[in-house]
Amino acid sequence: MGKRVAFVLSGCGHKDGTEIHEAVSALIALDSKGFDITFVAPDKDQTVTKNFLTDESLDETRKVLLEGARIARGDIKTLDSIKAEDYDLVVLPGGFGAALNLCDFAIKGENCTVDPEVRNLLEEAKNNGKPIGAMCIAPVIPARLFPGVTVTIGNDAATASKIEQMGARHRSCPVDDAVTDEQNRIVTTPAYMLARGPAEVYNGAVRMVEELEKLL
Amino acid sequence: MGKRVAFVLSGCGHKDGTEIHEAVSALIALDSKGFDITFVAPDKDQTVTKNFLTDESLDETRKVLLEGARIARGDIKTLDSIKAEDYDLVVLPGGFGAALNLCDFAIKGENCTVDPEVRNLLEEAKNNGKPIGAMCIAPVIPARLFPGVTVTIGNDAATASKIEQMGARHRSCPVDDAVTDEQNRIVTTPAYMLARGPAEVYNGAVRMVEELEKLL
Repeated sequence: MGKRVAFVLSGCGHKDGTEIHEAVSALIALDSKGFDITFVAPDKDQTVTKNFLTDESLDETRKVLLEGARIARGDIKTLDSIKAEDYDLVVLPGGFGAALNLCDFAIKGENCTVDPEVRNLLEEAKNNGKPIGAMCIAPVIPARLFPGVTVTIGNDAATASKIEQMGARHRSCPVDDAVTDEQNRIVTTPAYMLARGPAEVYNGAVRMVEELEKLL
Repeated sequence: MGKRVAFVLSGCGHKDGTEIHEAVSALIALDSKGFDITFVAPDKDQTVTKNFLTDESLDETRKVLLEGARIARGDIKTLDSIKAEDYDLVVLPGGFGAALNLCDFAIKGENCTVDPEVRNLLEEAKNNGKPIGAMCIAPVIPARLFPGVTVTIGNDAATASKIEQMGARHRSCPVDDAVTDEQNRIVTTPAYMLARGPAEVYNGAVRMVEELEKLL
């Protein structure tokens, strides 16, 4: 069996959940290398549900787990049912869901807090030396949890500044590359913080997975 | 500008809409080769909305266009607003949405009919010699519309038999390959009719796009 990845979803669609192209790009890159993927998500309501044509918030409540199950093809576990010790690494694709449902960075910026179940998983992973990969805006989560880590969200100055205010370090990175913090075992890639389309997202995801593999 | 693709979505998630891994795999393959992608979908209610954990039908009506917009990152046109003449090819990813919302094959099998807007687009494309690519179960749509075409859905005997009853020919195909009907300019690949994971879907999508490119 391949190395076991806990793949953390935050819904389905970048305006209120997981960015779909990022998730699938990472999945292809991981599956191509024989990783054994387990989808997980918090079993709670989404913070918002968006109309993707108008950007309006809908008067409708969707569940993070059920929407994430669309990307997971129905095979997804609740975050509170898994333990980091059963996995070799954790991967977090981006999308606003990462900053709305996994933490509240989209609302509170540098004063954000991380969902307790997400925090538990990532703290246990990090304390046990297990690598963490994060794409797009999701690097704000390890930045919030682990002072001193180095991450990238591409080159957006405002977001980079908030990351530094949280006590992490930001390093600029092109879309087709990834930043590796070897000491803290965290790999991040800009994805749609910079990407102009799915091919660029995919190239960055492949680089992230290559770097994660080196840490295992 | 690259060759222009009309990329037809049927929702978001394989149990009631577009299969997400298939759509993104095709998008990466197309974008990597410089194709210019326009997302389109019929502006109508989904036939069903599924709970992806339990497979139950939900008492909830979602719109094909709005859910497709999740894969399209908000940039999607209604099918009735486009003309085949403005595109160089048409691509249809699979998922039950293709057999529930773009046609009713999932309900009526070989007696299915195709959504009139989908039919118009595909007939205009075919009459003007524009290639059509289809993945997974979506090949039943050209099989229904165009007697004598050769397609694959992998090797599922029951579905292959229905395709032949509709007057098309079925050819078995491994997951990492595609079947090209050169005369009718139709390329099909099995995707999740056979695939065990996203890497196999992606390899088939790359083959489909390579074959489509040869026809242009």
